[in-house]
Amino acid sequence: MTSSVTVKLASGHQMPLVGFGLWKVPKESAAEIVYNAIKAGYRLFDGAYDYQNEKEAGEGIRRAIREGLVKREEIFVTTKLWNNYHRKEHALEMARSQNESWGLGYIDLLLIHFPCALKYIDPAVRKYPAWWTDDSGTVEEDKVPIRETWESLEQLVDEGVVRSIGVSNFQAQSLYDIMSYAKHPISSLQIEHHPYLVQPGLVKMAQLHSIVVTAYSSFGPQSFLELPEVFSAKAKKMPTLFEVEPIPALAKKYGVTHAQILLRWATQRNIAVIPKSNNASRLSQNLDATGFDLMAEELQLISNLDQGLRFNDPGYYLPNHPLHIFS
Amino acid sequence: MTSSVTVKLASGHQMPLVGFGLWKVPKESAAEIVYNAIKAGYRLFDGAYDYQNEKEAGEGIRRAIREGLVKREEIFVTTKLWNNYHRKEHALEMARSQNESWGLGYIDLLLIHFPCALKYIDPAVRKYPAWWTDDSGTVEEDKVPIRETWESLEQLVDEGVVRSIGVSNFQAQSLYDIMSYAKHPISSLQIEHHPYLVQPGLVKMAQLHSIVVTAYSSFGPQSFLELPEVFSAKAKKMPTLFEVEPIPALAKKYGVTHAQILLRWATQRNIAVIPKSNNASRLSQNLDATGFDLMAEELQLISNLDQGLRFNDPGYYLPNHPLHIFS
Repeated sequence: MTSSVTVKLASGHQMPLVGFGLWKVPKESAAEIVYNAIKAGYRLFDGAYDYQNEKEAGEGIRRAIREGLVKREEIFVTTKLWNNYHRKEHALEMARSQNESWGLGYIDLLLIHFPCALKYIDPAVRKYPAWWTDDSGTVEEDKVPIRETWESLEQLVDEGVVRSIGVSNFQAQSLYDIMSYAKHPISSLQIEHHPYLVQPGLVKMAQLHSIVVTAYSSFGPQSFLELPEVFSAKAKKMPTLFEVEPIPALAKKYGVTHAQILLRWATQRNIAVIPKSNNASRLSQNLDATGFDLMAEELQLISNLDQGLRFNDPGYYLPNHPLHIFS
Repeated sequence: MTSSVTVKLASGHQMPLVGFGLWKVPKESAAEIVYNAIKAGYRLFDGAYDYQNEKEAGEGIRRAIREGLVKREEIFVTTKLWNNYHRKEHALEMARSQNESWGLGYIDLLLIHFPCALKYIDPAVRKYPAWWTDDSGTVEEDKVPIRETWESLEQLVDEGVVRSIGVSNFQAQSLYDIMSYAKHPISSLQIEHHPYLVQPGLVKMAQLHSIVVTAYSSFGPQSFLELPEVFSAKAKKMPTLFEVEPIPALAKKYGVTHAQILLRWATQRNIAVIPKSNNASRLSQNLDATGFDLMAEELQLISNLDQGLRFNDPGYYLPNHPLHIFS
């Protein structure tokens, strides 16, 4: 089993429809986990500067290449530019530095992580957390037009540092605006997407404009339970998607895991997924998220669980620093 | 009773907190209606190129000025730039022409009507409907950066055609982006806002950034019932806000109309309102939307009716031309 099903991006490059998400993967074990994921068949790895494990993930990939398990061109690396590096000079410098960390010659897909510019933080001075606040705990907004950041990404494509570019956590209005001036297409939009937060209009709009949607947090509240209280409180209030019908019934019917049902619900609608697991057998199962087909009515039944319920919203988990980027 | 309560815009100019909305006011009676509204005490008039009654509304205002009922500087005219005129040359030409139509020397507040550029339609060739589709019934998107349109509005301020500028139907992401390059501030954000669609995050974000929120369709479904089926179908499915508790109970308690409760719910939270009525006594009552105070718990009870239910969404009423500007 390898993630052989791919989707063609607007850039012309192919991207696997199922990948491995590196959010919350500890730096210490990232190299080993990524290496084992490649052994299990994963080819797409979804990282970010914010996850602080790009160098280690790159080591895992390079080891697999060195040992002849895969070639570079069979691997697809997505990573993201963090909010503090939206200014042109910072975006270029940061992306080149991220590319060095991965050590694979180029990045396959670089996304703007959030439509939200924060004041520059020198990464040499403040290694981690490269999160929302500065050292004093304040969120410092900066005034950088999205266009400046987008055009920096385009320059990185022209320089060969990056092959495809896209955005994450953007709404339709922001996509229309980028499309009005983009010289390179928006290849992918990565968004929180699970049956509690379906966003059908946004998905439709993106797909109509040949933007491949990638879902994060495919398991809904599950993805947030292991996080600190401020993140997880909302998730803890909801039944996990693994126990809400029709998920268990469909898992039983198709003889697959609850996770596979949730992933297939996305991939069958041409939405890429990037689950993560620390468990070897679940890792393998998750990869098999294209090997069976749900019926149209079953997809709809799952979509009917929609509650417009968003877990990854800084307006919620940064209550003292209102950033209402999804309002 | 005149609309004497005003709010200071970021531009430095004062705007009345209660105004008269010209949407759906027939061209034939607009001059008379506006003239009578001034007699009733209205000072703010909210128009748009799309409403196709600017010239007539201007006539009503000019008559009142001629007769000495008001001075120009006591009147506040808001109008909006329609989607087909987002390109710089069209925006400038159209706004100057709208200013001529009003015939009052200048526009107080000019808004970008929707964050959505459509192909140019020569207004000399196609007078009306200046709506979403071209003559063949197709919605033709155009690629015009919001920045190009915003900077055209700024130029109109510099030229004295317009005093303050703002946007309508924009989400927070779009506001952050404009703020990153704006030379003149966003004075107002006009949005659909009623107890079925509260948008608390967007309101908070705008107010935090000194953007005055103006509510349209303050009565919720009521505002859409008189429209063609494609517009009104969704509204007809909902109980009107006039019959949903706590509105009737509060109207009784304060000895005011249901409409006044809904308007006061907005104005008490510093949100401007622009109701319209063809009925003289209701016209007067609506104007008195700042003369009593609801208790904080009562405001909250009304806000609790929130269902995230939007009636004015082209993604809904243009089903064959998906424009997902609120996704």
